[in-house]
Amino acid sequence: MAEKLRKRIAEIQTKLKAEPEKAMVSITAASRAVDGQSWLSEVRVRDHLVTMDLPPNFAGTDRGPKPTEFLLVALATCHEVTYRVVAESLGIALDSVSVTVTGVSDARGFIGLDDRVRPGFLEVRGTVTLDTPASEADVERLRQMVEKHCPVLDDLRAPVPVTMEVVRARRAAKSAVR
Amino acid sequence: MAEKLRKRIAEIQTKLKAEPEKAMVSITAASRAVDGQSWLSEVRVRDHLVTMDLPPNFAGTDRGPKPTEFLLVALATCHEVTYRVVAESLGIALDSVSVTVTGVSDARGFIGLDDRVRPGFLEVRGTVTLDTPASEADVERLRQMVEKHCPVLDDLRAPVPVTMEVVRARRAAKSAVR
Repeated sequence: MAEKLRKRIAEIQTKLKAEPEKAMVSITAASRAVDGQSWLSEVRVRDHLVTMDLPPNFAGTDRGPKPTEFLLVALATCHEVTYRVVAESLGIALDSVSVTVTGVSDARGFIGLDDRVRPGFLEVRGTVTLDTPASEADVERLRQMVEKHCPVLDDLRAPVPVTMEVVRARRAAKSAVR
Repeated sequence: MAEKLRKRIAEIQTKLKAEPEKAMVSITAASRAVDGQSWLSEVRVRDHLVTMDLPPNFAGTDRGPKPTEFLLVALATCHEVTYRVVAESLGIALDSVSVTVTGVSDARGFIGLDDRVRPGFLEVRGTVTLDTPASEADVERLRQMVEKHCPVLDDLRAPVPVTMEVVRARRAAKSAVR
């Protein structure tokens, strides 16, 4: 893949330099509860269907990861991909990379028992394991570039403006809409 | 499920009030590239295996969502679950809820073409569709509570401290480790 990837990155860079207005990317996910009897939810992302559920300790049927677990999936894979892309563009050999991330939260924030406790993660710690013949200096150069360019890492470390609009389903048209 | 859920939420609240030290929750995700020939990655979360891939426009084989799409999966499902839990604890009838979220980013940030462009989302906009017989006042009360208590929404809006440690695989033990 290395050569194909290197070529593709170069193509994308050339294209975006020439036409920066084409750099705007928009992606969408749509979730929908499967029924009113469980937590099970199906999320459509392009042609992919992702299953979310809650574990038994929250009265769930555990047929998929829970929401915050998907956030860690996003961080681990984004970090992995960014290491591979940056290594490729810096010309640093990278035989393999794997990423483990752990997030810690205080359930009182979500449950609403204490308003001083945030509902989100108190902290996230990860370990990146690199298999590479590169020098320590090159590994450090790689690490610094990844810390600057990993999208999901940036989404967590720096505030993202999020706006959620609430609309009411048209109850009269319910059977037709569904 | 409503009754079972209501009972479970009450149990959790009682338990965490009595023993706040039990409120700390730790979750982990571990990603691993399937091979060196594609972007395909498998992520283990408890007993669940999640497949990540990149789309064809990034030389991927598109066998799963990409990392930033999983972030939107996390936000949409977390918001959906939080609406259902909060409605239950406020005693507001909620027949169904679905959530669509769209994130916009500028690819120049990831690709490293312009350091002034952040790699993460410039913004995320969502629509929450509620099917409920509740009054407008109750819907607004529900919305405000969800905005305060949705974990993934908080993870995006407020900075999360993230620390990533880099370790090198022991190359001599490579065949044994794999």
